[in-house]
Order: sequence, then structure tokens, then C-alpha cells
Amino acid sequence: MNNDKNVDKLKVIPLGGLGEFGMNCMAIRYKDDIIVIDAGLMFPEDELLGVDIVVPDITYLLENRAMVRGILLTHGHEDHIGGLPRILTELNVPVYGTEFTLTYVEGKLEEHKLLDGADLIEMVPGERFNIGPFNIQPIRVTHSLVDCVALAVRTPVGTIVHTGDFKIDLSSPDGKPFDLHSFAELGKEGVLLLLQDSTNCDRPGYTPGELAVRPRLDEIFSRAKRRLFFSCFSSSIHRIKLAMDLAHQHGRKVALIGRSMDNATEIAQDLGYINPPEGLLIHSGQIRDFPPEKVCVMISGTQGEPMSALSRAAVDNHKHAKIEAGDTVLLSSRVIPGNEKSIFSMIDHLYRRNAKVIYDDGASGLIHVSGHASQEELRLMINLLRPKFFVPVHGDYRHLTRHIEVATSTTIPERCILIEDGEVLELDANSATKTGKVTSGRVLIDSGSTSDVIEDIIIRDRKHLSEAGLVLAIISIDKMTGRQEGTAEIVTRGFAVNEEGMHAEARKIIQRTLETSSDEEKRDWMLIKEKIRADLKRYIQKNTGRRPMVMPVILEI
Amino acid sequence: MNNDKNVDKLKVIPLGGLGEFGMNCMAIRYKDDIIVIDAGLMFPEDELLGVDIVVPDITYLLENRAMVRGILLTHGHEDHIGGLPRILTELNVPVYGTEFTLTYVEGKLEEHKLLDGADLIEMVPGERFNIGPFNIQPIRVTHSLVDCVALAVRTPVGTIVHTGDFKIDLSSPDGKPFDLHSFAELGKEGVLLLLQDSTNCDRPGYTPGELAVRPRLDEIFSRAKRRLFFSCFSSSIHRIKLAMDLAHQHGRKVALIGRSMDNATEIAQDLGYINPPEGLLIHSGQIRDFPPEKVCVMISGTQGEPMSALSRAAVDNHKHAKIEAGDTVLLSSRVIPGNEKSIFSMIDHLYRRNAKVIYDDGASGLIHVSGHASQEELRLMINLLRPKFFVPVHGDYRHLTRHIEVATSTTIPERCILIEDGEVLELDANSATKTGKVTSGRVLIDSGSTSDVIEDIIIRDRKHLSEAGLVLAIISIDKMTGRQEGTAEIVTRGFAVNEEGMHAEARKIIQRTLETSSDEEKRDWMLIKEKIRADLKRYIQKNTGRRPMVMPVILEI
Repeated sequence: MNNDKNVDKLKVIPLGGLGEFGMNCMAIRYKDDIIVIDAGLMFPEDELLGVDIVVPDITYLLENRAMVRGILLTHGHEDHIGGLPRILTELNVPVYGTEFTLTYVEGKLEEHKLLDGADLIEMVPGERFNIGPFNIQPIRVTHSLVDCVALAVRTPVGTIVHTGDFKIDLSSPDGKPFDLHSFAELGKEGVLLLLQDSTNCDRPGYTPGELAVRPRLDEIFSRAKRRLFFSCFSSSIHRIKLAMDLAHQHGRKVALIGRSMDNATEIAQDLGYINPPEGLLIHSGQIRDFPPEKVCVMISGTQGEPMSALSRAAVDNHKHAKIEAGDTVLLSSRVIPGNEKSIFSMIDHLYRRNAKVIYDDGASGLIHVSGHASQEELRLMINLLRPKFFVPVHGDYRHLTRHIEVATSTTIPERCILIEDGEVLELDANSATKTGKVTSGRVLIDSGSTSDVIEDIIIRDRKHLSEAGLVLAIISIDKMTGRQEGTAEIVTRGFAVNEEGMHAEARKIIQRTLETSSDEEKRDWMLIKEKIRADLKRYIQKNTGRRPMVMPVILEI
Repeated sequence: MNNDKNVDKLKVIPLGGLGEFGMNCMAIRYKDDIIVIDAGLMFPEDELLGVDIVVPDITYLLENRAMVRGILLTHGHEDHIGGLPRILTELNVPVYGTEFTLTYVEGKLEEHKLLDGADLIEMVPGERFNIGPFNIQPIRVTHSLVDCVALAVRTPVGTIVHTGDFKIDLSSPDGKPFDLHSFAELGKEGVLLLLQDSTNCDRPGYTPGELAVRPRLDEIFSRAKRRLFFSCFSSSIHRIKLAMDLAHQHGRKVALIGRSMDNATEIAQDLGYINPPEGLLIHSGQIRDFPPEKVCVMISGTQGEPMSALSRAAVDNHKHAKIEAGDTVLLSSRVIPGNEKSIFSMIDHLYRRNAKVIYDDGASGLIHVSGHASQEELRLMINLLRPKFFVPVHGDYRHLTRHIEVATSTTIPERCILIEDGEVLELDANSATKTGKVTSGRVLIDSGSTSDVIEDIIIRDRKHLSEAGLVLAIISIDKMTGRQEGTAEIVTRGFAVNEEGMHAEARKIIQRTLETSSDEEKRDWMLIKEKIRADLKRYIQKNTGRRPMVMPVILEI
């Protein structure tokens, strides 16, 4: 890659997010300087048992570690910042982000005991700064999260614009508008390359603004006869603010339940994004002190995640979140593909409690809006920026392909280029050429725990099975009674620690997990598996210091 | 259940399909006579590793085996007939179905070597017949399949109507109209109980007829510049006919690829549902003899099933179905929830071949219609039949709940009752009461093979792990190269047959499966797992006569 001929070209090298959704990460190199835009994670496919998160392979950065000047974050979603702990462990470079983004990053690094050594630098939208030969201009964009930016990177060969995640919300609820003018000015000045978010390139028209859900949510608040359980993605600060406003207007107290909901709300309050009036918020233990029609419970778990507060409430296994006949449960979110089974299983449980459930079924009105630009917004951005070259980012292969169709329809870019993770695009003022490949791929990480407890999560590669170890827990459950039949079978590989004692103890733990589960939980295999996995893992780690992959296999007999 | 007090009440006892989608099965009992409506299967959740199909627990029927007079099939879809082989093995009673339905059943029973002993009796829509105290009237309905019926069952306490699966298609492509008049007459005569399909009770309005897709499909046929690959559910006889008509009109020869597509077309031809003009059909080996713009390949595999013809073609691993740049692939089907990952992975592969892919993405026009009634059709049926009591069938708990809301909105039924699998509803002319529960549940079946080869599939309960046996194949694959790292680990439980030799051989088989897979296949974990599972299973069965559960675990390292 370092031959003299190309030494004064600019290299754009995606390390993640071009060919999949998630783990967004892109390196930009000019001579001996590299900057990295975003450092995300993604969640694994079901086929990869025992894997918790997936992050990009950064071998390329490690091989050129002396050149890496910093990581620039466009916003605080997991698919853009979730890989940071892993990367900083191996490559401690400065991290740039807006105020809100860095607050999220701080929390994350603290969990991993990496905060003390980290160099976090705040970016302010509109304020330009230099990193080596690069001049960076963060530009305010709107999205489902707050304080998001696109990045204009002026380089010796021309200007690159990376949109990050965005939509063009013309009535942003936080009063911080999408910065159309800066994009227009860049377009006049000349843009060499636009890297644009492909997530919604399939959708015609414009994505509705965040406030578009207000009328329907208002109606739901006014019609709810008893308790209203409101669930949304915990990072949807706009949505949380809106729900609190509506609760206040409709005379309901607000209780927050679920760690991620608590955490997000706290940060948003600290930074002034939410200002609940005095007395609006109550502790979850106080829910019973108010009449049901005077309470709104904001609860995390829209995706039916087995251990989330809402999933537990749905099977009547949450101390404070008791869902009763006539209560309303509103999932102000979308059904993320792949999560259908867990979500619909949770919804069935909610129906069994005789709750009224309102979710994204195509007939519930506008209870959620996407945070990503639809086709007309993508075209608008291209019209504003008038880039010479165009590369779609953030998407599966089919999204990248389709996004190129959308971009081509504007007749503006001279050339649209599809590149995937690891491919090197070399640019000068007149040309853009794919020149080769660097190492890229997915690194699978099995974090320590899936429970609510914050633990010291040691992140590591599963380099060899014999090194990492595998514990299979084979549990036979009687299909009639939902009870365990016989004792569990424990199979281990590459994990020879006091086998006999451990096996017996592991069996007991499984027994206990099953015994303390409600009947409804026992009928939910996914939940039971997750509980057993978490409990067994905690035990093994505590008693052996080892972190093998733990895989429960449930056989209904 | 047999106490004298209730002996002259009618009992309606769902054994499957009320609380889940699939495995539809309902017993109707009067005194000592039982008839059963439908005997379906469902496909398992991902959590149940190594299970191929799920069928209802028929303990209740076995306990009352002398009373069971016959099984009545409403139509030939798997969720209505797929459990038959299993049931007939344990309880060989007469099976009633329409001509087309019985042809499907025959093929299925022949595969399981059950055909010779089976007693199949044809029902003709409109022709009434008696079974014990029950008078049965099959009534023609329209659906995505042909020759479907609802069943009116006149009993000593009143008339029950079971809709089966239906929509009200007012321009049925086979010229066999939905029999509105019989339903109207039944309504006049008086209906005690309506059991109605809940599948689409969430959808407002009317479901479009089968022919509603014609304009858009016609457009796609006329715009396709090269080969057109047309895929739909193989049981969609109407759709297959339409595609053949269009191919003929647009001057394209038709090649059929995929066993299920071949099979369905053959049956439909035999029974006169499709009559391709002389010379339209070509053998798949002849595809290359015609110019690309003169060929339409009808191919099975809309759901990205790992071993389907289309999935294999997508990774360039099918002898005859070669997909080339500029070809069009049309998936005239819906994305069944839960199949997103395999479908979208297949679509990505198709895009990599530079094919134009048209699928159900919300922006492709009307390329598929549902076969199930929407809310207005459900209300229309209730208006026609004017039932005293109403019980929703076919659906998860939330569908049953919502369907009751739809039924209640008509103000016609005196009472709507939600019952689930195993619950007994007792009826007389004036009352409907839930009185208890019978044994019910799901029986998990691990069939012999998932390959295309028809095998003698022995169906059995997985009664005990130790009896069934478990073979885990743990394969480490290098994430960079996609190659296997080291040799596979084989873990067995309850399966002690010549362990050493078998382990070595199993490792070789896995090696061979991987070596003969293309690079693109190797990147598709789901596909690789399925291939290894099928190959290993075949080997073990052949060499040991045992049929253990085989579970490949792939670790990317």
C-alpha cells in the first residue's frame, strides 16, 4: 500500500458498515496520517452462538498504529461508538465527539476502566479544527439522537463529506436545526467525495420529523384509562422528552424503569435536553401510591430483550412494573428485523395480562418515526453538496447498490462507486480508483455478562476454542409441565477445571434458575436460555476466573 | 370429561393453532363421536435446535381412539395437512379432503410409506355427507391455494362453521367462485358457532384478489431485458399459472427448477389447473439453448431456505440456474417474519451477481397478495352467517384477542370466546362454556434429512436425550479466509457407537463439505451449518442406523 506512486493520493478505507448494518468504522489516510470516523459495534447473527457483540477488525490500524491521529465520532449510537472500548485497549488515540456523544463515551469507558487513560476532545458543531493534514468541520445534523454531526474533512486533494446518520428534520424538537447552510456552502466550495448513510435508501419521499408522532401519542395519553407503560429506545432523547411533556400535560407522574432508560434520562437532564418540571418524576417504588390513571411508567425493552424490564413485567416478574388488566402498553419504536419472535412473544404475554398493547403493526398510527433520511432527503443532500464522487455507507450490499441508483438519479455525481469493508479507494482531484484490499473482518466478542449488573467486562478474542473453552448446558424440559426432566447435562471442551465439582454445581445453578422462574417464563425458551446463560456464566467466572463460552441447549421432551 | 351431565353437549377442543400460527388441528366431539378438522404442522423456533417440524400433541385423540371417526382437511397447506403422517401412524382413521388436497396428501403419505394403508375419501364442495351424528357440508372458499373449503358441521345441538383459511376473492382465477350463497343460506338457517381464521385480523379493509398482481407482474415481464427468474411459494398454483401465462405472452420459454416447484406444477397440470401451451415448458438443461430474453426460470426458494434452488443459484452453485449480470429475479411472495436474515442474505448474494432483484420491500408495487381475509371480509362472513357464538382460530394470543374485537364490532355474535389449545368449549343450543382442559402441546420432530432426496423419514418423539442421542460438531472457521481451522471437534451424548472410528470419519465428512463449498457459501454460516448437518446426518444414519440429533456449532475465530 505504501508504494511511492500513490503516496500523495487520499485513501478511503472502510473497516466496517459497508456490507453490513452496524460496526461502522472508516479510515481516511493521507500519506502518513490516518483519521478514523466512528468505531461501532453490531449484534451477532443467531448462528454465532455465545457471541455478544461484533466489532470491526482493526488490524489495518494496528499495523499503521503510529499514523493514527484520532477517532472522530458522528454521534452516540452503539453502531458508531460501541467498538471504542475494544479499539482504545489496543490503540489509545484521541477521541473527538460532541458534548452529548462524549458523555455516552465516558460512561462506556468507565465501565471498562478505560476512562482515566482516554483523551477525549470535544467537537463543537461549526468550529473547524486541524488534525495533521486534515481540516475537520463538524456540521450539525438531525437524527433520532441529539447532538449529531456530519463531518466535512478538507484534505490536500479535496473535501470529503461523511454524513454520519441523519435525516433532515425541519422542526428539530431541541431547537438545534439541521445546518443546511454549511452544506450549501460546501457545495459551492466544491466537494470531492460524499459518503452518505444508506439505511433508508429504499424508502421513497421524506422521513417525518421527530415531532410528527406527537398527535398520535397525545391521543394515546388522553385515551389511556389506567396506567400507561411507555417504551421507546432509551437513546431516543426526543421521544423521552415528548413523553414526559405529554405525561405532565395529562396529569400523570413519571416513573423510570430499566437501567438504560434511567441512564439516558440522567445524561439528557444533565445536559439540558430534558427539564422535567418539579415533582413530575417519581421513584418506581412510589407507583402504587398514585391512582393508576395518574401514572406513566417509562420502561426499557421495546425489542423484547429477554432480560429487559418490559419483558420481565410482561411475565409478571418485575418488582415495580406490575401490568394489570386495562393498562396500556405503548411501544413507540419499530420492530427491528430479526427481533420479531422475542417482541411478539412479549406482546402475547402482555395481552394475557389483558393490557391494551399499541405497537408498530401498520395500523396503530404514527407512533414511531425513523431517524434516517429517505430518498428525497438523500437527493437533497446530493443537490446541496454537488459531490464529484459518491460512495454509499451504512448498509448491506443491496442497500449500497440501491443507494447508488438513488444517487445516480440526481445526475450530479460524476461517478458512484460501491466499495465494501477492506477495499481501498484512492482519490486525487480528478480520479477515484479502487486499488486493493486491506485486512478487514468481524471480531466476535463474548462479554462477561448480559445481566443488569455492571461488571468489569474483559473483552477478548475467542482465539482458539481450546483456549477460550466451551460449556454446553443441555437441559431437558418436559413439554407438558414446563419442568426440568432429570438433571442437566454439562458438556465442556477446553476447560478442564475441577470438572466433577463444577459440573455438579452447574447443575444446581440451572435447577435454581428454573425453580425461581415463573410458569410463564418457563414457557419462553428464549428467556430461560438467556437466564441460564447469565447465571451459569456468572458462577463460572466467579469460581474459576475463566470466561468460557456458555451455551444452553434446551430440549423439550 | 366423560361425566354424564355433559354427555349431550357438543365439545369443541382445539389441539393446535389457537395460540400459535401453524399445526392447526381441532377436535369436535358429540357423545362418543369425534371428528377432527385439519392436522397441520409448524416450523420450530430457532431456540429448538435440531428440530425440523412441530406437530400437535394428539394424546386426547389417542385416549379416545375408538371414538375418532375421521379427519377432515380444509385445504392442502402444510399447516393444515403436514401433521397427517404422524397422526395416521398412531391413529389410522379415514381422511376427507377435496380432490386437489388429497393429491397432496397422497404424495406426502407415499413418502412415509403410509399410502397403502390409508383410507382417503374425496369431498366435493356442496355435497353433504354424514359421519356419525355429524352432517358435513364442504363449502367452496377462495385462498392462495386451489380447491379449498370451509366446513359446515350440523350437529344435534346446532350448526358449527369452520372457515378454514380463506379470503373472499371475487374474481378467482380458476373460475371456481367463493360460495357466498351457501354461507347466506346457513345464516338464514341459523349458526350456533363460527370458528374463523384470524391470520389477517390486524389488517383493515379487504385483501386484494389473486389477479390483482397481474398488472405489476406484466410490467416486470415486459421490462426484463434478460433472463427472468420467477419465484413464488410452490403451492401458489394461481401465481404459477399467471406466470406461465405471462411468459407465454411475452415469448419466453419456461423452465421449472426445484423439487417443490416441479411437484406442485405436475399436480396442478394433472388436475387441469394449469394447461401450459405445447412447447412452453423446457427442461432446465435447455436454458442455455435459448437467448436470455426468451427464458423465464420458475424456481423455488422465496424464503432463502439454505438448500433451496434459488439460494444455491444466488451463490452460483446450481447446475442449471445460472444468474448473470442483468438478469431479473422476482420474489413474488412475502417475507415471512423470522426468515428476514436468510432472505436478505440471499438477496445480497443476488445483487453481487448484478441481478436486478424485485422483492416485497414496500416499494415494488403489488407483486404479492395475501391469501387471508382482512377485517371487512371477516365482518362480511359474520354478517352472512350471523353466528350465536364466535371463536377465533389460527393465530397467536394477540391475534385471537384482536379478532374478537373485530367480531364484537359487528354486534352480531351474542358472545365471543377466546379459547386456546387444549381448552374445552362445551355447547348446547343456548350456551357455550369453557369447562376444562385436555392434554395438549407441541411434539418436536427431527426428520431424517433436510436434503432434496426423498428418504424414508422415520418420525418419532425425542423422548429422552439418552435414547435419541446428540452429536455436536464444533467447527472453527478462520474469519479471514473462511477456511476451517484445525479439525472439527465431535461431541456425542447418548450415542456410543464405535466412537473412535465414527469421530474420525465425521471429521473427514465435515472437511469434505467445506472443501466442496464455494467461497461465497463459506461466508454464509447458515448455509454451511445446514450443509454440514445434512451430510453428517446422512452418514450417521447410513452407517449406524441411528438418527441422533445433529447440531453443528460454528465458531468464527
